[in-house]
Amino acid sequence: MLGLMQDWPLRCHRIIDHAALFHANREVVSRSVEGPIHRTTYAAIRTKALKTAQALEAEGIRVGDRVATLAWNTGRHLEVWYGILGCGAVYHTVNPRLFPEQIAYIVGHAEDRVLFTDLTFVPLLEKLADKLPTVERYIVLTDAAHMPQTSLKNAVAYEDWIAGFDGDYAWKEVDENAAAGMCYTSGTTGNPKGVLYSHRSNVLHSMAALQVDMLGLSSNDVVMPVVPMFHANGWSLAFGMPMAGSKCVMPGAKMDGASIHELLESEGVTCTAAVPTIWLMLLQHLEETGGKLSTLKKVVIGGSACPRAMTKKFQDTYGVEVIHAWGMTEMSPLGTLCSLKPAYAKLTGDARLDVQEKQGHPPFTIEMKITDDEGNPLPWDDKTFGRLKVRGPAITSSYFKGEGGEILDEEGYFDTNDVGTIDQEGYLRITDRSKDVIKSGGEWISSIDLENLAVGHPDVAEAAVIGIAHPKWDERPLLIIVRKEGREVEAGDILDFMKGKIANWWMPDAVAFVDEIPHTATGKIQKTTLREQFHDYKFTDA
Amino acid sequence: MLGLMQDWPLRCHRIIDHAALFHANREVVSRSVEGPIHRTTYAAIRTKALKTAQALEAEGIRVGDRVATLAWNTGRHLEVWYGILGCGAVYHTVNPRLFPEQIAYIVGHAEDRVLFTDLTFVPLLEKLADKLPTVERYIVLTDAAHMPQTSLKNAVAYEDWIAGFDGDYAWKEVDENAAAGMCYTSGTTGNPKGVLYSHRSNVLHSMAALQVDMLGLSSNDVVMPVVPMFHANGWSLAFGMPMAGSKCVMPGAKMDGASIHELLESEGVTCTAAVPTIWLMLLQHLEETGGKLSTLKKVVIGGSACPRAMTKKFQDTYGVEVIHAWGMTEMSPLGTLCSLKPAYAKLTGDARLDVQEKQGHPPFTIEMKITDDEGNPLPWDDKTFGRLKVRGPAITSSYFKGEGGEILDEEGYFDTNDVGTIDQEGYLRITDRSKDVIKSGGEWISSIDLENLAVGHPDVAEAAVIGIAHPKWDERPLLIIVRKEGREVEAGDILDFMKGKIANWWMPDAVAFVDEIPHTATGKIQKTTLREQFHDYKFTDA
Repeated sequence: MLGLMQDWPLRCHRIIDHAALFHANREVVSRSVEGPIHRTTYAAIRTKALKTAQALEAEGIRVGDRVATLAWNTGRHLEVWYGILGCGAVYHTVNPRLFPEQIAYIVGHAEDRVLFTDLTFVPLLEKLADKLPTVERYIVLTDAAHMPQTSLKNAVAYEDWIAGFDGDYAWKEVDENAAAGMCYTSGTTGNPKGVLYSHRSNVLHSMAALQVDMLGLSSNDVVMPVVPMFHANGWSLAFGMPMAGSKCVMPGAKMDGASIHELLESEGVTCTAAVPTIWLMLLQHLEETGGKLSTLKKVVIGGSACPRAMTKKFQDTYGVEVIHAWGMTEMSPLGTLCSLKPAYAKLTGDARLDVQEKQGHPPFTIEMKITDDEGNPLPWDDKTFGRLKVRGPAITSSYFKGEGGEILDEEGYFDTNDVGTIDQEGYLRITDRSKDVIKSGGEWISSIDLENLAVGHPDVAEAAVIGIAHPKWDERPLLIIVRKEGREVEAGDILDFMKGKIANWWMPDAVAFVDEIPHTATGKIQKTTLREQFHDYKFTDA
Repeated sequence: MLGLMQDWPLRCHRIIDHAALFHANREVVSRSVEGPIHRTTYAAIRTKALKTAQALEAEGIRVGDRVATLAWNTGRHLEVWYGILGCGAVYHTVNPRLFPEQIAYIVGHAEDRVLFTDLTFVPLLEKLADKLPTVERYIVLTDAAHMPQTSLKNAVAYEDWIAGFDGDYAWKEVDENAAAGMCYTSGTTGNPKGVLYSHRSNVLHSMAALQVDMLGLSSNDVVMPVVPMFHANGWSLAFGMPMAGSKCVMPGAKMDGASIHELLESEGVTCTAAVPTIWLMLLQHLEETGGKLSTLKKVVIGGSACPRAMTKKFQDTYGVEVIHAWGMTEMSPLGTLCSLKPAYAKLTGDARLDVQEKQGHPPFTIEMKITDDEGNPLPWDDKTFGRLKVRGPAITSSYFKGEGGEILDEEGYFDTNDVGTIDQEGYLRITDRSKDVIKSGGEWISSIDLENLAVGHPDVAEAAVIGIAHPKWDERPLLIIVRKEGREVEAGDILDFMKGKIANWWMPDAVAFVDEIPHTATGKIQKTTLREQFHDYKFTDA
């Protein structure tokens, strides 16, 4: 017997509809790519999104077609985002920081028909254009006054392009499971793989992300998403802000410490979110200038592990609460946030920081488990670490065009390829990537824990740990070190420094010194390259 | 093209699963019907819900069967609630305050096969049992020690009944649109009508209700739902509390001021919810005893309009924020909550109270409109009032067994039968029931506004306003008054008191004095009876 409730499909356009009605005049403030600060409202964003949808349809874009954006966080990007999904097409945010050949691969693989770009990326695209055969038209997110001369196919200034439309458009009434958005993973191996979000997954994800113990956004918040909309579905903020009615502050192309600080203060930002690198720049700027954070209450930090010192600095010096977060492009992307539940809420000092080093707990709609290599569940005891697997309505079931094949286990869980522990309160701590964990005598050693420990040595600039084949133990850790300029530190010094801080059997068997450690386009250590480099390495005593 | 996200149906049992994993030891504290305070946890509640599901299945209960509860708010009621829906059956909360013949009608109409009852209602049911032919077994929510001698069919003590089961049970994997729960409306006319909630509607409703600008519950909250679970889907708190991981405090059968105050203080309650009558009793108790509210932060008040003086008293004297709310059984039930958006957040004193008299704004997932009798939309100007219509995934599309026929308009909106205004910020103010509004010369007059004004006269105990047929104006208001005991107030005094406070054409054409105004079982003025009583009334000048 079915319930007798209304059929109201979860479509993303309803979010901007809600904002335009109930938070109509709430501001969306952008540092425009052209320079000046630009102010608009949710009601106006919706009107321009409707025009975008109309114009795309006039362009021949149909339900399910992919439309790319190569753009910074601005109000225009938000208009285009809703315009694309509102006409039934699929917004495909492309990361401009990828290598040009990766961009070409992604745009081609997605078969993007139209590409919206910021002025910034016109030169890049001009060079790349002959490798982008699927793109029929380039739309530059600017007005006629700022439109450059360009060789890009059918190029037009965005404001001119929508000027002829009146916005009298009815959003396409697609199935709630229809594709709405797309983002490619920046995997460290192989080609990027496309994750295809549905209207339903985006709506449910945003409703879960807004819960008090998660992002906890309200209509009284002023939110600055520094994390780009092209990074992992923009951490869902393009949906969450209008759904909650939060004022939105978009940093545009400028993410240096001074520019971010200026907007935080001038717009009264209460909540912001980005990767640690951004916050390092901000904290450095504040230290140099003696600046304060007078309105900011909460900073969400994810993308990579948030250093303890950063959490401490934000909280103790600037009075800003840090919410450590973990997610994946495949998870829409938020997985866990480290808000403090009652068992931890009263902790202070180091005990509090100990908890905040964890990535936190998931909202309702996300299920987690940790397992051994055979898929057997492991205990939540804060010590045992296992392969982290997740299930939920906003988690990938497969990649675009079937790349990577079957990716769910028998119970329907997605293997994150992360390895972690879960404590008794359900807090996750990511300890490694599963392919980077060192498997020694049936036990696992976290390469990340060893790296974090090693970089604590004052003479070490960067550290990486990889597993080297070992006849007795299967694998043993090799510590690879880049010395700080002019320092003379030797293997024994570093190992002595580490001794006693970890279990003895975790101690690296050897230390190798290199001039440089290879990185991916997004700044992660490229362990595959390291493993190739040290392919023939042998421990002297093995 | 469909998105590639996991198929994860929105089933209610996932809520208690989430709580049992991520808020396992969070307490559920009840004032038991037997007397003592009883303490359990979400993990333990889930285990007993699994046993209940197992036992119901052993009893022959199948997917879609209705199972009734006639019970106060306790942990046991929560166990049974999840146990019923977890085996695919439909929890049907019956309001014990209804007239016995209404209870018999409802149980029969729903075809409830099993009935869970608190000890309190055993005598009532014994008298009523021969009018409840569909009920195959009565389960008394108690243990063997407290089990009474009873003539009820196959009666068994709940704790005995589940004792033989081990809880090794897999929740039924029903369609997310399958029926999960049921509640009959206590309409003022005709037979009660059944509203049938789905798993999906309950999950979505709870996720929306937990947003910061709505209930805003977190794992650090201690929530006491004084509003009974049998009242309008329990205001969704049976889902919201475990979803958020809030500690839950259940008042059981005792809802007098002293009992409520005791629990608020002893359990550290931070948020509570009920109808104004409850809060009148609490405030009176506090005044008599000089009691304080030392942990309470927020009180949600709905069911009927919250008097301005009550809001002021809670906020100014006790430092507790009032959230005025409006909803309907047909809306799962929350419609709007009066949290303060930025445009109002800084108001103080009377200006703030003016806003708080409104019923507030809806969360994402609820659409509203006000229309004239022909269905034309009316402006949101805080003045124009019209028929209030709503649309969303947790709003009724029809009643059980088709009672009442088609109830949605062409656009799929449900007519609330309320009349209200909406202001520029999207705040609703309920001004009347649509059948009670007085239609005078094409314009509408709010009977409730007139009543509220008239009861402000010091000699008036109660006031009701109904429309009387009028040859020229169609209808004109008649004010019906119950004098305070021993007072001699006359029509002219009351009309003089009202003059100048409302538009002249709103002034009642006459005043009638009566000894008593009829009420429904739930305490609302029974205007249908009044209209019958005054059926032949004629204005002297008409």
